[in-house]
Amino acid sequence: MNIREEVKKMKLAAPHVAAMSNVQRNKALSLVAENLQKRADEIFAENKKDLEYADQNGIAPQIVKRLKFDEGKLRDVIAGINQLIQLPDPLGKVTLSRQLDEGLVLNRVTVPIGVIGVIFEARPDALVQISSLCIKSGNCAILKGGKETTYSNRILFGIIYDSVIQAGFPEGSYLQAEQHNEIDELLECDDCVDLLIPRGSNKFVRYIMDNTKIPVMGHADGVCHIYVDKAADVEKVIPIIVDAKTQYTAACNAVETLLIHRDVAEDILSKLYPALKSEGIAIRGTKEVTDIIAKIEAAQVELSQPTDASAAADVETVEETDFREYLALIVSIKIVGDEDEAIEHINKYGSHHTDAIITEDDDAAARFMQLVDSAGVYQNCSTRFADGFRYGFGAEVGISTSKLHARGPVGLEGLVTYKYTLKGEGQIVGDYATGKSTFNFKDL
Amino acid sequence: MNIREEVKKMKLAAPHVAAMSNVQRNKALSLVAENLQKRADEIFAENKKDLEYADQNGIAPQIVKRLKFDEGKLRDVIAGINQLIQLPDPLGKVTLSRQLDEGLVLNRVTVPIGVIGVIFEARPDALVQISSLCIKSGNCAILKGGKETTYSNRILFGIIYDSVIQAGFPEGSYLQAEQHNEIDELLECDDCVDLLIPRGSNKFVRYIMDNTKIPVMGHADGVCHIYVDKAADVEKVIPIIVDAKTQYTAACNAVETLLIHRDVAEDILSKLYPALKSEGIAIRGTKEVTDIIAKIEAAQVELSQPTDASAAADVETVEETDFREYLALIVSIKIVGDEDEAIEHINKYGSHHTDAIITEDDDAAARFMQLVDSAGVYQNCSTRFADGFRYGFGAEVGISTSKLHARGPVGLEGLVTYKYTLKGEGQIVGDYATGKSTFNFKDL
Repeated sequence: MNIREEVKKMKLAAPHVAAMSNVQRNKALSLVAENLQKRADEIFAENKKDLEYADQNGIAPQIVKRLKFDEGKLRDVIAGINQLIQLPDPLGKVTLSRQLDEGLVLNRVTVPIGVIGVIFEARPDALVQISSLCIKSGNCAILKGGKETTYSNRILFGIIYDSVIQAGFPEGSYLQAEQHNEIDELLECDDCVDLLIPRGSNKFVRYIMDNTKIPVMGHADGVCHIYVDKAADVEKVIPIIVDAKTQYTAACNAVETLLIHRDVAEDILSKLYPALKSEGIAIRGTKEVTDIIAKIEAAQVELSQPTDASAAADVETVEETDFREYLALIVSIKIVGDEDEAIEHINKYGSHHTDAIITEDDDAAARFMQLVDSAGVYQNCSTRFADGFRYGFGAEVGISTSKLHARGPVGLEGLVTYKYTLKGEGQIVGDYATGKSTFNFKDL
Repeated sequence: MNIREEVKKMKLAAPHVAAMSNVQRNKALSLVAENLQKRADEIFAENKKDLEYADQNGIAPQIVKRLKFDEGKLRDVIAGINQLIQLPDPLGKVTLSRQLDEGLVLNRVTVPIGVIGVIFEARPDALVQISSLCIKSGNCAILKGGKETTYSNRILFGIIYDSVIQAGFPEGSYLQAEQHNEIDELLECDDCVDLLIPRGSNKFVRYIMDNTKIPVMGHADGVCHIYVDKAADVEKVIPIIVDAKTQYTAACNAVETLLIHRDVAEDILSKLYPALKSEGIAIRGTKEVTDIIAKIEAAQVELSQPTDASAAADVETVEETDFREYLALIVSIKIVGDEDEAIEHINKYGSHHTDAIITEDDDAAARFMQLVDSAGVYQNCSTRFADGFRYGFGAEVGISTSKLHARGPVGLEGLVTYKYTLKGEGQIVGDYATGKSTFNFKDL
C-alpha cells in the first residue's frame, strides 16, 4: 500500500467527513455496534489466531490478557459506542459570535481537525475506541495497531470501515496500516496529516516526536509526583500512595516520586515504609531517606524478631538526579525543606503530567496547584484519576503533556478545532482604514 | 549572553509570573504606559539613530515608514495598552467544573502557556504590543526584533522591563535577544520554551519551523482566494477584490488567487479586467482566462482608440500549478466549472489562511464555508478582515494557520492553555475499580 497516495485521498475526503451531520455520524456508530455484535463469532475466531501466535511465541501473560478480545471486551466496546452516541455533538458549536459592524458578523465554529494518525499498542479494544472517537468527531483516521493483534485488528477494522461506508461516509476516509515500515511513510506526510497521536513506550513516542513535522499529541514520560505536606492527614497518605503506585503500575499516571516535608518525614516514613515493604515496593531514596529507613529497620529489629532475609525491603540510596519513570514496583523518595522546594523539584524533574499534594492546609494546596506546571494538579487523591473515563469524557485517545491544544486526558473536545466564518454585504477594509466606516463591535 | 542559561531561569520564574493577579498584571501595564510617556523624548532620540542608519544604508521608504516611532505611534501603543488593561482577565477562567463523586471535584482552569519566544519584524510598535499581550496573559517572553530597530527596541524593552520589575514581577521574566545568532540558540531550548511565534518572510518562518522541536504558531504562506460564484453580485465583486489585493498588498491576508465560475466568467472579467488594469494589478491567468482577456482587449480596440503601449496590462498565461503568494500587485486567475472545483482548488493549493466566496446564494455560501478547510471562511467581504484588531481581540501576536491550539488571528485567548485541578478527600482509584465506590458525575 502506498501510504502517501492513500493519505492524499483521505485529505480530500476530510472536508466531506467534516460535513457529515451528527445524525449520520451517530448512524455510523450504531452500525459499527450492530455489526460488531452480528459478527462476534468471526471476531473471536480471528482473535484466537492472535492468541495462538502469542502462545507459540512465548508472549508474557499480562500482554496476552490485553490481546484477548472476548465477550466481556465486546460488551464493553459496544457499551462505549452507545455512550458516545448519547454525547452531544462536538461539531458546529458556536464559541464566539460577534457583530463587527452592521451586516458584518463573525462566528467561531468548532470543526474536526481533519486527518489524524493514531499509532497504538496491541489492544483490539483500543482500535474500536479510537475509531469511534474519530467517527463521532468527524475526523478521518489512519490507524496502526500492534503486530501482535494483526488478525483481530484486520477484522475489527473491516467491520468499522464497512459500517461507515454503509452510513454514507466517503471511500477512503479511514485506513488501517498494517506494516511497521508504513509508520515511517506516514511520518513524512506532513502536508496531509494534521495530527499524530502515538501511544506506547517512551522510546517509541520519542522516536515519533523526533522524526516528523506533523504536530504530535501525547506524552513520552509520566513522571508523576506526590508531595506529602507537613499538614498531611496521615490516614490519607498511605492509601493514596499505595493506590497511585500499585493500582496499575505500568500506567503513565502511576506515581514515581514521593516528596516528603522534613517536619513530618520520620513520622510519615515510620508508617509508609512498612506499607511499601508489604506491597513489595522497592525504594530509591536520597541518603536522608535511606538513613531514616535504616533507623526504622534498626528500631524494628530491637522491638521484635529479626525479619528473615527474604522479607528485607529493596532499598537503595540514589541521587535525586537518578529519579525516573519506573513503571514498576519502585518508588523514588526525597525529603524537602518546604513546599517551594517540592514545587521546584516537580517543575524541574517532572514531565508535567499529573502531580498531587496531600495536605489539610487548603492555602498550601492552592499554592501547589497554582505553581506546579502540570496538566493535572491534585489535592488529596490518587494520581491514577488522570484518565478520560474518570474525568467523565466518555473515552480518551490518550493523555497530552503538551501545553498547546489539548492538555491532560484527550476526549472528543481535543479532537476538534475551530474556524472563523465572516459574513458581510460587500464590506471592504479600505473603508475602515480611511474612516469612511467604523467598527461597531457587539457580541451576539 | 547565554540564551540557554537565561531561558532556564525564565522557565523557573514562569509559574510565579503565572501566579500574578490580574491587578498586578494590569499594574505592570499601567507602568509601561506611564513610563513610555515619561521617556518619550529618549525613545524618539533612539529611534532617530535607527532612522539615520536606515538612511545611510539606503533602506526602502516603505520599510523606513515602519521603523519610525513618532508621537502618533506612541499614542497608538499607549491606547493599545490601555485597551488591554480594560479587557477581562484571560487567566483563572473555569471552563469545566464537574463533581466526579461526592467530595471529588474536577475543574479546568485557564493558565498561561509559560515561556514564549517571539521573533518579529523591524517594527518598534510590534515589540510593545507583543510584550503587552504577554504581560496581560501572564506569560514570560523572549523577544527578538529586527536589527534595523536595534536602538528603538533597546530603549523600549528597557522601559518595559523596568516597569514589570517595578510592578513586582520576578527578575528575568522577560528578555530581549539582540543578536541574530541567538535565534539559533533559542531554537535548541525545547525543554524550556513552550511556544515560538515567528513573524516575517515565508522563508524565515519556514526556517524556524524546520529547525526546532518547540511548537511553532504562525503561518509561512498566505495564499488567500476569492471565489466569484455564478450568483455573485457584480457590484460587490470589484470593490472586494481591489480592496483584498491593494489595501495592504504585502499582508498575509491579501488575496492572491481569484476563481471565477465559468457561467459568469466573461461578464465578470469584462468589468474586473479594466478595474485591475487601472489599479496597476498584473494578471497571471490560465489560458482560458487570458483568452477571454484578449477578446476583451480586442473589442476595446475596435470600439475606441487603441490604448498606448504604457497602458497595456501585464497579463501572462500560466498553469494553475504556478499560482503562488505574490505579496505584490499581481493576481492569479482561474475559471472553474462549479463551486466544488473552487473548493477543491482552495483546499489543494491554498494555505488554509483566509478564503472568501462572493455570492448572493446563501446555500452556496454555507457549502463553501463548510467545505473550505481554512482558519477564516468569508462571504461577501474582503479577506483583509482577517486580523486581531478587526475581530475585536484588542490586538494579536500573529495569525495561525495551524489546526491545533489557536487558529486565525491570535489574541489573548491564544496565549493561554489550561490545567485540570482535582480536589479530593483521600479518594483512590482502586475503590472505583473494585466497585466499592462508583462515579457520580455531576456538572457544577
